[in-house]
Amino acid sequence: MATMVSNSLTKKSEPAVNSPTQVIGGHGIDSYSNNSSYQKLAANVVKKKIEDAIMMKLDVASFSSTSNIIRLADFGCGVGSNTITAMHDILEFVKKKYMSQCPASQMPEFQVIFNDQSTNDFNTLFTSLPQDKEYMVAGVPGSFHDQVLPKSSLHLAHCSYSLHWLSKLPKELQDKHSPAWNKGRIHYTSAPQEVLNAYATQFAEDLDNFLNARAQEIVSGGMMVIVGSSIPDGMSYSQVVNGLMYNCMGSILMDMVKTGSINEAELDAFNLPIYACPPGEFTEGVERNGLFTVEVIELMNPAPWLKGPIDIPVFVKHVRAAMEGMFSKHFSREDIDELFNQLVPRLSQISQQMKSCDRDGLQLFAILKRK
Amino acid sequence: MATMVSNSLTKKSEPAVNSPTQVIGGHGIDSYSNNSSYQKLAANVVKKKIEDAIMMKLDVASFSSTSNIIRLADFGCGVGSNTITAMHDILEFVKKKYMSQCPASQMPEFQVIFNDQSTNDFNTLFTSLPQDKEYMVAGVPGSFHDQVLPKSSLHLAHCSYSLHWLSKLPKELQDKHSPAWNKGRIHYTSAPQEVLNAYATQFAEDLDNFLNARAQEIVSGGMMVIVGSSIPDGMSYSQVVNGLMYNCMGSILMDMVKTGSINEAELDAFNLPIYACPPGEFTEGVERNGLFTVEVIELMNPAPWLKGPIDIPVFVKHVRAAMEGMFSKHFSREDIDELFNQLVPRLSQISQQMKSCDRDGLQLFAILKRK
Repeated sequence: MATMVSNSLTKKSEPAVNSPTQVIGGHGIDSYSNNSSYQKLAANVVKKKIEDAIMMKLDVASFSSTSNIIRLADFGCGVGSNTITAMHDILEFVKKKYMSQCPASQMPEFQVIFNDQSTNDFNTLFTSLPQDKEYMVAGVPGSFHDQVLPKSSLHLAHCSYSLHWLSKLPKELQDKHSPAWNKGRIHYTSAPQEVLNAYATQFAEDLDNFLNARAQEIVSGGMMVIVGSSIPDGMSYSQVVNGLMYNCMGSILMDMVKTGSINEAELDAFNLPIYACPPGEFTEGVERNGLFTVEVIELMNPAPWLKGPIDIPVFVKHVRAAMEGMFSKHFSREDIDELFNQLVPRLSQISQQMKSCDRDGLQLFAILKRK
Repeated sequence: MATMVSNSLTKKSEPAVNSPTQVIGGHGIDSYSNNSSYQKLAANVVKKKIEDAIMMKLDVASFSSTSNIIRLADFGCGVGSNTITAMHDILEFVKKKYMSQCPASQMPEFQVIFNDQSTNDFNTLFTSLPQDKEYMVAGVPGSFHDQVLPKSSLHLAHCSYSLHWLSKLPKELQDKHSPAWNKGRIHYTSAPQEVLNAYATQFAEDLDNFLNARAQEIVSGGMMVIVGSSIPDGMSYSQVVNGLMYNCMGSILMDMVKTGSINEAELDAFNLPIYACPPGEFTEGVERNGLFTVEVIELMNPAPWLKGPIDIPVFVKHVRAAMEGMFSKHFSREDIDELFNQLVPRLSQISQQMKSCDRDGLQLFAILKRK
């Protein structure tokens, strides 16, 4: 099937303002759990890079000299099998590294911690865990912008497609008197520079809070793997598929205002709390924070094996599973149905434009190390 | 309202054979969460005893000298506010003890761990946590008969109305050739001694597994608070309200076999996996295990303030919220409705007998300490 992976789809469930749960829980036909195959493919691309980073840069021997337990955590884990597979893979790499560093020692205990908002569907996650898992499990509810684990208790943190969710929307987007007033749009795509700046400022604040919280939890020498939405430095978001899609969504919603099915003020109050941070800005943020070193940072194509035209109905189904939660706090079920139903023909109209979009460099891969 | 607290109602959700979730999750009208007020009252009776034990017997200063985190866990936490309230109270006592032992030191961090089967409704639990809680939280799915936490990571364990659930039913209960064949009954109440022995043997094995698992997790000097169903040594279960109720349930189900609404073999295969361990047996089990000392063990009346006759419809509503899960794996929804509908008039018929039952000594309170 010739489909395309879009970067900011690949998200699990770190919430944003007014939308405590982004993804659809459970195992139903519209669930994130059953509509996250793109995310799974994207994860395979980074698997080898994570293995390399652990083998080359993680000093597991030093951890086990001070503790008989090694803890790994996924921040913004969401539901479905992706978090379980990712953490299983990471655990295997850590074990492999341990066996190479300490061939004569007994393997330490391992605990895998799954973090997400308290509204995440932990029930589905817990009942999806394999029966024969060789690690202990804990689910930790709470925003990852705050400390959620005890001090110096964590050895490796993983955070995949979660950081791009802003903790809140910048106020200026709704302020008629601000140059960042985002009237008539639902995202910074194709918006004035001031709108982009407002998003970037909020992202920088969120990133700093995230790093401060993790710095409390992660032991010295501990590692953080970050994967997520990005864009090459200097590229405009209107040059990528998701940007075109957000523009389409905005124009469908504006049409619905014209036909009276939604209220203009309601639409004005709605913006997507999603920011794809370019690598330059990301590195600056980490360096300004000062608690981690940047060991690796690079942009990748999240799905280089996908070449052909986009299968738009499948694409929209994935988009809906990942994004519906954001819309459902603002709009009625019927309005959301209409939005996603209209999205298929609208995107089909611009399929040539989508095809010519840049697909490379939309995924950030970073390895940080706690100083 | 003149009601009566029955001891083995006060359970949360440690599961038994064929019934992975005992209690009704969520916040609906039949949910455990909304029908566990008896359990809450019962918890108040033990609160003062827990405070005394912590103040007199828990050496918090020794924990904080080796770790900057103190971890408390509730095993078989279930859903609803009871586990949150219980752990909040215990945390306050631990803080109070810490302030008295180490008045000049900074308060350590606290983590409260909620354990139950992976089928427990952790979603409801996590979203019920207070916003302003002063502790970190983790939910740990898995049977408490196995180790579920890292070695020597826990300082205080709480287990309330969970241990009486057997991990599995003794096979002999269904063996026609065994003297412990429990034909025509659903519990050991009014059964031959061999049936009681089979239950007691399974309980002893479960208790031993529980103690071995906790001994791995709890640091030396760490404390375990156990509250649950019991009965004075030597007393028959047919002398207590729950025993009468189990007999009533058995006879209603037998009548349903006669009318053909349930199958005889189906009923023969059903037994309640509930055992109220007398204190003598409990102490023996702990001493045989050898990893904990018994600091306190006593029987109490779970609700000494309740004197009058039993409000049977309210009582049955509580019973159903706590026990329905056990029946639902064996019987249809309609059969369970009929069982609980018939239970009200059946119990009303024996209300005098219920009134004369012993109410004292049906709750075990024990404080164990890790050697």
